Amino acid sequence: MIEYRNLRVALLGAGSVGTQVASLMLRHAEELAQRTGAGLELAGVAVRDLSRRRSPEIPAELYTTDAEELIVGADIVIELIGGIEPARSYVLQALNSGADVITGNKALLATHGAELFEAAEQVGAQLYYEAAVGGAIPIVRPLRESLAGDRVKRILGIVNGTTNFILDRMDTEGESLEAALATATELGYAEADPTADVEGHDAAQKAAILASLAFHTNVPIESVHREGISSITLQQVEAARAAGYVLKLLAICERLADGDGGEGVSTRVYPALVPLDHPLAAVRGAKNAVFVEAEAAGDLMFYGAGAGGIESASAVLGDLVSAARRHVIGGPGVAESHHANLPALPISRVTTRYQITLSVIDQPGVLAAVAALFAGHGVSVETVTQSVAQGPDAAPLSATLVIGTHLASEADLAATVADLATSDVVSAVTSVLRVEGS
Amino acid sequence: MIEYRNLRVALLGAGSVGTQVASLMLRHAEELAQRTGAGLELAGVAVRDLSRRRSPEIPAELYTTDAEELIVGADIVIELIGGIEPARSYVLQALNSGADVITGNKALLATHGAELFEAAEQVGAQLYYEAAVGGAIPIVRPLRESLAGDRVKRILGIVNGTTNFILDRMDTEGESLEAALATATELGYAEADPTADVEGHDAAQKAAILASLAFHTNVPIESVHREGISSITLQQVEAARAAGYVLKLLAICERLADGDGGEGVSTRVYPALVPLDHPLAAVRGAKNAVFVEAEAAGDLMFYGAGAGGIESASAVLGDLVSAARRHVIGGPGVAESHHANLPALPISRVTTRYQITLSVIDQPGVLAAVAALFAGHGVSVETVTQSVAQGPDAAPLSATLVIGTHLASEADLAATVADLATSDVVSAVTSVLRVEGS
Repeated sequence: MIEYRNLRVALLGAGSVGTQVASLMLRHAEELAQRTGAGLELAGVAVRDLSRRRSPEIPAELYTTDAEELIVGADIVIELIGGIEPARSYVLQALNSGADVITGNKALLATHGAELFEAAEQVGAQLYYEAAVGGAIPIVRPLRESLAGDRVKRILGIVNGTTNFILDRMDTEGESLEAALATATELGYAEADPTADVEGHDAAQKAAILASLAFHTNVPIESVHREGISSITLQQVEAARAAGYVLKLLAICERLADGDGGEGVSTRVYPALVPLDHPLAAVRGAKNAVFVEAEAAGDLMFYGAGAGGIESASAVLGDLVSAARRHVIGGPGVAESHHANLPALPISRVTTRYQITLSVIDQPGVLAAVAALFAGHGVSVETVTQSVAQGPDAAPLSATLVIGTHLASEADLAATVADLATSDVVSAVTSVLRVEGS
Repeated sequence: MIEYRNLRVALLGAGSVGTQVASLMLRHAEELAQRTGAGLELAGVAVRDLSRRRSPEIPAELYTTDAEELIVGADIVIELIGGIEPARSYVLQALNSGADVITGNKALLATHGAELFEAAEQVGAQLYYEAAVGGAIPIVRPLRESLAGDRVKRILGIVNGTTNFILDRMDTEGESLEAALATATELGYAEADPTADVEGHDAAQKAAILASLAFHTNVPIESVHREGISSITLQQVEAARAAGYVLKLLAICERLADGDGGEGVSTRVYPALVPLDHPLAAVRGAKNAVFVEAEAAGDLMFYGAGAGGIESASAVLGDLVSAARRHVIGGPGVAESHHANLPALPISRVTTRYQITLSVIDQPGVLAAVAALFAGHGVSVETVTQSVAQGPDAAPLSATLVIGTHLASEADLAATVADLATSDVVSAVTSVLRVEGS
């Protein structure tokens, strides 16, 4: 019988992830001890309300409402409460006491990451957060370690399962946004209040975390440009497929020239057209994937379940094994690296391709007028597709122009769209979408 | 100006990967120092022949033919020579001297891995090998660390770019195996002697490494069941697509019941039918991907470039950063874990689905006879598709039966196929393929 050193593990939160973490710890205790060289003792599970019905797998006496007391004397604290407070205070208490902390709390990291990493560094503790981005998908460790000798150029991520499910339903089932959201809610893929998902807040938090990691820079959530999917129409999704694209809500982190001879980081979230032959186009349903373009490694993709209790628990357990090994062997782990300290760039510095759909009056000279307007702002047109709607007596009523541009800056594009909206020959600008991944 | 501790790095081998590693080390010296807290001094590059033309990026005085002397005094040794000897002796010399070793040598790991890991453990040195499987794709670290708290059930890997390129050309361009191989050679995806790739030896070495990692077990290369793609026909590839599959050379590592109430590991390489909607089906050209099915994390996939000088160099640099950090902070890293020590199971223990194509005499009762033959061996038929070839005067000459089975054991299937081959009603068994990933 091998004698293991015992490590006290405090678990904060007993939601779907927390309950699975506790169950797995108890069920696989012997295996975890073999892998880490330490006995992992679940010292307690802090919850807000003891009267709520709890998992039968977890002994009732482990539950407590006193998180602060539970943290005292813990070697490792797992925070799965979510939200900012009291999670932030608990994490700071744990780090200040020298405990390693494992968290899946993307909101906390995206808003108070700098403060937490500094607290950890002060006492030589570690903060692990593999579950905060991409659920079960190992993406934090590969970015932090595997690609540590490379330079990341760009990340395109499908990091929100709810919106990917909705857009996929619209694409494959022809459902409207409202119907697809209702389906998502019914199947448990969307919360009662879906705002955080649908408006891109969740994806923006994950984008901030990914950008911070990939570019060794503290990227605050305030610097992330964010657009959700609430104004996406079924027409746009169907037109995208007809044109060889699929519409995805992307989290994009990109290293760009800052315009002054240096470099900066653009972090942004918006629905974008992805070419059907891009690996991200095959990411269906509520799955997540992170596509990384690195200087030496080339294109990489990490794919899997982006949410779910047991799936995210796997990521937490991986962090727990790392933390336990660190306790057994001593020495600090991988320090958070912000040495590059690149400035956050505004969306106006971004160049991308666009697809713009216009309703125009069907008369000679319209195309020339529209083309001149693009040219006037230095936006180069790559493709034009015109379709004419027929009136009841076969007389054309209006035409639809779908214009694909070459790379253009957000600033030039915005100016072009403003002019199009007020142009005499344009009845309406019906869709403006960016094209990414090509 | 920060003062860094200096680490001496010895590079063995200056092929396409080695040259890129040296170039990246020299070009990104400052950045690597910031990330690791150590100056990484390239102490020398050992080559066999000084007269060969070398990269202009590497100072000529760094080249040496005396690898053994170069290893003396090195903190970190990078072995990129390939093959068994002298690579094995150099790696052992380095480990015995206490140096950490980074290698991309899959043949060496698959055949002498146990010896090398033991040597490393004896002196508390580390052996890193991210580049040995999947080139640039971070797969070793995720399996070793991110999934360390989970249980891997199965791995399906496309780990050989040459064969994936060949099968993809057959599928998309309708080229014969010979023509696709010629194209691969022309484009530099296949070596002059393609045996190691085409016959599955390369994939088998990688499978042994993946299985060892995933199942905490030493899986010797001799226990890997191996079938290559040399007998695959264009007809099989085309029939696969028509039936909703794509043919891939898969490396499969699977945890199975051993038949005695325990568990074992099956490791095998063969061409198999993959359903078109499986994420592995979208892995085109020379790309690699490793699909991991874990108990808690569910399905994960890691995708990217499986070979290439600069791509593999990225993986080596990631290992170099890990090794350097370990030197700076002290303490051993992640120990190789073989605690599970599962037995290697023969292919006869495997159950999978099969697709069998038969030429049969077109007469009444044939289907019943064939069906009885499957039933006699306990192999359950799921689908039968019959197509009749017409003679010149529209008289049917013979029929083709494509039979899909439910899960069946290799042993039962082999017995069924043997009976089919000698059956009076069967003219020929034209194809027997396994179906994986469904």
